[in-house]
Order: sequence, then structure tokens, then C-alpha cells
Amino acid sequence: MSSTTNTATANSAGTQKATFYHAGCPVCISAEERVARALDPKTYAVEIVHLGDNKVRVSEAEAKGVKSVPALVIGDDVFHVNFGASLDALK
Amino acid sequence: MSSTTNTATANSAGTQKATFYHAGCPVCISAEERVARALDPKTYAVEIVHLGDNKVRVSEAEAKGVKSVPALVIGDDVFHVNFGASLDALK
Repeated sequence: MSSTTNTATANSAGTQKATFYHAGCPVCISAEERVARALDPKTYAVEIVHLGDNKVRVSEAEAKGVKSVPALVIGDDVFHVNFGASLDALK
Repeated sequence: MSSTTNTATANSAGTQKATFYHAGCPVCISAEERVARALDPKTYAVEIVHLGDNKVRVSEAEAKGVKSVPALVIGDDVFHVNFGASLDALK
């Protein structure tokens, strides 16, 4: 690990990619801080994607099965964490 | 903690307590493996509670704001991860 204070950006060998989609809402920020960024960097390299700022990636999230944000995608598994906004509302 | 091999039970100094409530359902097991047990042990000491086997703790979960399982509780924050079963169904 480097000296970054954010442990969620580790990309050491052996980590799996995880993607956390959010839209900046309070529910999203809480889930980002408490869950997505708290995943063990030895296990996951987490990419944080703000769909409000990256509308072009909404279709990517949708293709993965994301129905609402915040959501954490790991491989084929989608974990919707509470409910902030539907994906449709971000299009 | 005992000699379990799962890294989610670390209890080194500085960790916060997190509680993952589930009921053994497929949705629960996926969330347990991919999220709850993947939290950085440097950050959280995660207790896994099977409410089917510990019905006495359903009221504890309810008091914390858990509406359904699987759910991860960290401090005052409740993160419902997808939907496996309502808490009412476990009473």
C-alpha cells in the first residue's frame, strides 16, 4: 500500500475488481464511506463511479444489473446497498 | 475470537464493530462472502449473526433499524444489502 489514506484504491496482485456506482446522494456517500471504501484492499480493488458525473456509464451499470444506486458490483454479483435513487432517474 | 480462518473476525485495536445479520438464504450468503467478510479487518471487526439460529437476536436487529436481511450494521448506520427476507418473516 502507498501512503494514501483511502484503502479502497489498492491494486495489488490478486485483488478482484469491484465497482461502486453512486450518484452523490447522502445514502450513497454513507455506503461509499462505510462499505465500499472499507473493503479489504487485499481482496478488492474498488473503483468508485459517480453516475451523475459520468452519465455515459449509466448504460454500463444497467448492463451489469444495477437497478439503483448505491450499488457495488463484484464479478457477476450486484449488491444494492439501501436505496438512494433508481438508475432510471439518472438517465 | 476463535481459530476461524475468516479474516473478518479480526479484532485488532482501532477496529469498529460491525454486525452482519442474515438468515442463511442464498442472497444472504452471497452478501456475507462478498461484502461482510471482505471488509478490511483493520477497519472493522465483523460479527456474523444468523437470525434463524439466533431468533432471540431478531429484536436486537429490529431495534437497530434492520428491516430485512442481509443487513450490515455499523454504528448507527444500517446497510440493507439486496433483499433476502423481511425481519418480520424471521419472528
